[in-house]
Amino acid sequence: MNDHNQRHQARMERKKALIDASIARADQEKGLLLVLTGNGKGKSSSAFGMVGRSLGHRMKVGVCQFLKSRTDTGEEAFFGQQTNCEWHVLGDGFTWETQSREQDITTAQHGWEVACQMLADPAYHLVVLDELTYLLNYGYLNADQVLDTLAARPPMQHVVVTGRAASPALCDLADTVSEIADVKHAFRSGIQAQKGIDL
Amino acid sequence: MNDHNQRHQARMERKKALIDASIARADQEKGLLLVLTGNGKGKSSSAFGMVGRSLGHRMKVGVCQFLKSRTDTGEEAFFGQQTNCEWHVLGDGFTWETQSREQDITTAQHGWEVACQMLADPAYHLVVLDELTYLLNYGYLNADQVLDTLAARPPMQHVVVTGRAASPALCDLADTVSEIADVKHAFRSGIQAQKGIDL
Repeated sequence: MNDHNQRHQARMERKKALIDASIARADQEKGLLLVLTGNGKGKSSSAFGMVGRSLGHRMKVGVCQFLKSRTDTGEEAFFGQQTNCEWHVLGDGFTWETQSREQDITTAQHGWEVACQMLADPAYHLVVLDELTYLLNYGYLNADQVLDTLAARPPMQHVVVTGRAASPALCDLADTVSEIADVKHAFRSGIQAQKGIDL
Repeated sequence: MNDHNQRHQARMERKKALIDASIARADQEKGLLLVLTGNGKGKSSSAFGMVGRSLGHRMKVGVCQFLKSRTDTGEEAFFGQQTNCEWHVLGDGFTWETQSREQDITTAQHGWEVACQMLADPAYHLVVLDELTYLLNYGYLNADQVLDTLAARPPMQHVVVTGRAASPALCDLADTVSEIADVKHAFRSGIQAQKGIDL
């Protein structure tokens, strides 16, 4: 074994010891609240990846899409037909499509009622609240009530919330927060939303 | 309609006009190279969400997991059995597990050969190269050759690359780059990797 490889091995032995120790310290199980926020591409996709992972472990999953109204997306076509996955498209489109604040509020509150049933039912191992942050940030839902409901959910239930500009209070309640920065986006180079990638 | 609602409607009419115009400008179709990097949770999950979306559009998908060696993950159990999805677990574990640089290089080069077959075949609409950045950053693969192969792939093929510390050259080649910041992670609070969320 040459010098380079010996140094590599020694460095990796030390790294393994550190990592093994930190894995041993992380020994708790609980239902997680994850928040995926920021302006970059990948928030909803990431939630849907966790839907796939959960289905692979035969966990029961519920998904609420709060803003989307179109029902021709790849995610719904694929995940909506899976055993153990309940998929709800609850939106009227983005708020600049409806142009009616009253209609948006009615739609949001109906959607939240659907979510509340899942958040009260320990049979759901994972609940995805896709684009929930917009409903909170526009004041379509009462943020305190939403946070209370999230905090009171079954202890082993995972919840993933997506959307831009997650509030500090939501992030405080969360176990894991990822902020996705938009370093570069194909859309700004004139490329339209692509099937399989964006919808 | 009260004042608040009228102002909302006027604002949303202006917003809709701007957004419709920018959507009209983005009229190109092409195979995208997406890079999901940064230290936060959600890079691989996001790639797997796009796998689900693509399968929903009956697109053919190939996935290469370059570092993972375990084959008990939810993602493989679920996506690996889907029609139109070819799933390869190509790793020996993280490099601090093998502790052998020579073995890591052999494994990386074998994995890259599998990826190259997909990257030369227009039948694949989406190719996921999960955790590829580590192989580049450790020098296990020749970065120039990898970038040349990515650039020369079929023009309508989408590719998603995940992993920390994506190089500037890789980001330059990409159409979309998202950097996922680790604002907060449950692992640091002593919570172990959770089925359905992390594996």
